[in-house]
Amino acid sequence: MAIKPSTPKGTRDFSSSDVAKRNYLKSILQSTFEEYGFNPVETPSFEKLETLTGVYGEEGDRLVFKILNSGEKINKADLDALKNGENKKFIISLSEKALRYDLTVPFARYVAQHQNELTFPFRRYQIQPVWRADRPQRGRYQEFVQCDADIVGTRSLWQEVEVLHLYDRVFKKLKINDIILRINHRNILAAIISLFEDESRIYDFTLVLDKFDKIGKNEVFKELINKDFNIKLLDILEKLIDLKENYKEQIKYFKSLFKKSQIGLEALSELEFIFDSFKLGSSDSTVLKFDFSLARGLSYYTGMIVEVDSPRKTNIGSIGGGGRYDNLTSVFGMKNISGVGVSFGFERIYLVMDQLGLFPSNLISSIKVLFVNFGDSAAEVAYSYLIKLRDKKISCELYPIEAKLNKQLAYANSKGIKKVILMGSNEIKEKAFELKDMDSGNQTKYPLSKLTDLF
Amino acid sequence: MAIKPSTPKGTRDFSSSDVAKRNYLKSILQSTFEEYGFNPVETPSFEKLETLTGVYGEEGDRLVFKILNSGEKINKADLDALKNGENKKFIISLSEKALRYDLTVPFARYVAQHQNELTFPFRRYQIQPVWRADRPQRGRYQEFVQCDADIVGTRSLWQEVEVLHLYDRVFKKLKINDIILRINHRNILAAIISLFEDESRIYDFTLVLDKFDKIGKNEVFKELINKDFNIKLLDILEKLIDLKENYKEQIKYFKSLFKKSQIGLEALSELEFIFDSFKLGSSDSTVLKFDFSLARGLSYYTGMIVEVDSPRKTNIGSIGGGGRYDNLTSVFGMKNISGVGVSFGFERIYLVMDQLGLFPSNLISSIKVLFVNFGDSAAEVAYSYLIKLRDKKISCELYPIEAKLNKQLAYANSKGIKKVILMGSNEIKEKAFELKDMDSGNQTKYPLSKLTDLF
Repeated sequence: MAIKPSTPKGTRDFSSSDVAKRNYLKSILQSTFEEYGFNPVETPSFEKLETLTGVYGEEGDRLVFKILNSGEKINKADLDALKNGENKKFIISLSEKALRYDLTVPFARYVAQHQNELTFPFRRYQIQPVWRADRPQRGRYQEFVQCDADIVGTRSLWQEVEVLHLYDRVFKKLKINDIILRINHRNILAAIISLFEDESRIYDFTLVLDKFDKIGKNEVFKELINKDFNIKLLDILEKLIDLKENYKEQIKYFKSLFKKSQIGLEALSELEFIFDSFKLGSSDSTVLKFDFSLARGLSYYTGMIVEVDSPRKTNIGSIGGGGRYDNLTSVFGMKNISGVGVSFGFERIYLVMDQLGLFPSNLISSIKVLFVNFGDSAAEVAYSYLIKLRDKKISCELYPIEAKLNKQLAYANSKGIKKVILMGSNEIKEKAFELKDMDSGNQTKYPLSKLTDLF
Repeated sequence: MAIKPSTPKGTRDFSSSDVAKRNYLKSILQSTFEEYGFNPVETPSFEKLETLTGVYGEEGDRLVFKILNSGEKINKADLDALKNGENKKFIISLSEKALRYDLTVPFARYVAQHQNELTFPFRRYQIQPVWRADRPQRGRYQEFVQCDADIVGTRSLWQEVEVLHLYDRVFKKLKINDIILRINHRNILAAIISLFEDESRIYDFTLVLDKFDKIGKNEVFKELINKDFNIKLLDILEKLIDLKENYKEQIKYFKSLFKKSQIGLEALSELEFIFDSFKLGSSDSTVLKFDFSLARGLSYYTGMIVEVDSPRKTNIGSIGGGGRYDNLTSVFGMKNISGVGVSFGFERIYLVMDQLGLFPSNLISSIKVLFVNFGDSAAEVAYSYLIKLRDKKISCELYPIEAKLNKQLAYANSKGIKKVILMGSNEIKEKAFELKDMDSGNQTKYPLSKLTDLF
């Protein structure tokens, strides 16, 4: 019985034109990163299960693809664990490895493992696929490419400026205009919450605040009240929302608010430095915006947070994000490594470019010349000329068999080949060939001796 | 407790210089393939388990990495199967997907699935990692890159010539000389065996013959006798071994031997065509050689077989192989698709190049200019000039903090940065800067207005 050919749910085949577009996007990312002093690193597709367990939370643990142990090890399956509903224990008895879930944890592992070979501050980029056992849906895949750039080993705020400029430069090169970089600082949120509550409630607070864009002010307020947050917090949020489009007024307001909050004032002055320095060299097409409501789910940011909004007309939403972190490698026993990292949402940036028609049209490299095949003895002569063209770096092909001319020309058309050379036994006797231009349809006879000069 | 950072056995991290070298090799492969009319295709990292089961043989089935089902599906584990020693059944109850084991099967699946979108003859190349649960050892990894180029949809022998020329061209571009392409034809072997035995014994026969290079003539003969092959076969092999370096004499001998074997004579004439046509355009550095003992393990070749020997001095052995096949897609219900395919042993070619020093030395793109950091107000001026250089596509960096000059210069050295700009508050007052050449150590003062012109 024949197997119906299909890919697993949530995965994709990439045709030649897909690959060409993906490689174009990748090459611009790569070259820009390298202009900014970032060097590439690649890590294995799978890591030890222990490296990927417990770092992405409960939900993440479920979404990490585990690899089944092979050979005799399968017999070590802990059947009792399964019977007792201890799924985790059962899984550990069957699996020692898991597929990369993001680039952050493998990178942290890389830095800790290779710390003695690296020059700090270390600037690396990494563009590799990751895998998640997410329920597949439109635009969400189980295999997709991630792209991260990080600078680790220094607390210098110039690095925040660098990664924001990096965003600006990449999007400018990709010709994506109207990008908004929204930034905030973890300690702005911490200072706000500390005005009325214990700072530890920051996670609860930001969890609600993060929904601002999705559910709107009223719902956010309702949730905050339900969660028993101090009502004065709402007054402050109300005021901040009023000032949302006015950066200077917001800063003024925060300064008065944080009169007694050291961390709040420091966070403000960091943001001011970042804004001022960003202006030194940003393009016109990218806007840097302060957004006090930006929190991003991840709890590991300790300083600036950034989120990239795609052009509004594309309706694609966030196409990147990142921030400052202080504890990247501590789980691997390497303490106090501060860094700042940003990721580029490769798959979504691809969608934006596709939607806006920003991929160049000539990405698939077409063969330049097709030699028509008029049977073996003529084909042999044709092939000897084909070799001469190839030596001149002109790409060409001989049609494989002596088929009807129409069929051979149709092949040229479907492969985008613009020039066709006809060299049958008559032409060869005359030491000549015909050159057909596929766009105009014109066909011209030339002496064979001219063939290599024509291209 | 900190986790000791390490990768799973049989996998590798790639540093920036590794990635640069791997990308260089990849880019030459890609550009040559595209010159020859091959277009890229990519398939998902995992396939449905059924697609990868039963096609690689008993051993292959064991080496395919299976992915554990996630979530609640884990409870469908067939515990009885495990208890009864039915490991396969147990695995199927736990896994629906498996990691790509080679590029051939996913490509066959791709052709069958997308047949209506493709132009035949279809030339594709594919460079992607594959995974095998092999016992890791020196030079053998569980994750490694494969690289295949195939032409499917025609029986034309010109395609055999094309893929051999492709080998020649790729190795010439990589500057690997002294390559030997050994070729044979499946039906030469079939015709030899048919002289004395049932043709079905060809697999047994080639299994022994394949060991020729490893164990030598005497051991091969012993095995053939043990396996009860006709003694006259040994006389023929003896004669062929005598003629091994003399292509013309071998062909003459075969012609007399195959007087009554239609398939034998056809195979000979195919090989003669391939040899003659290959000569039309091969370089001097690659030798095409007939090797009647070449069989290659895989049973699916139906015509020409080829194996690529690396330069003898490297002692690395085969760095590629392939051949003509007739049934690529039949398992997916698409019959009679003939094709010819070759693979390039990416990891081994890498080793050859590394050993022979063939990687260019300037592959890591170094930043051109480092701005020394003399504290925030001077750094701000420096950064504004850095932006100007970047606008001129000069890659540069500002050292992140005001560290000791020696430390900043050491950073430049370790990142291969050749020019360092010193711009402290004194220089800025004088509207000047110092330019230090890291190779010569020379330091020269220039007016600030000249800065962008100097690069």
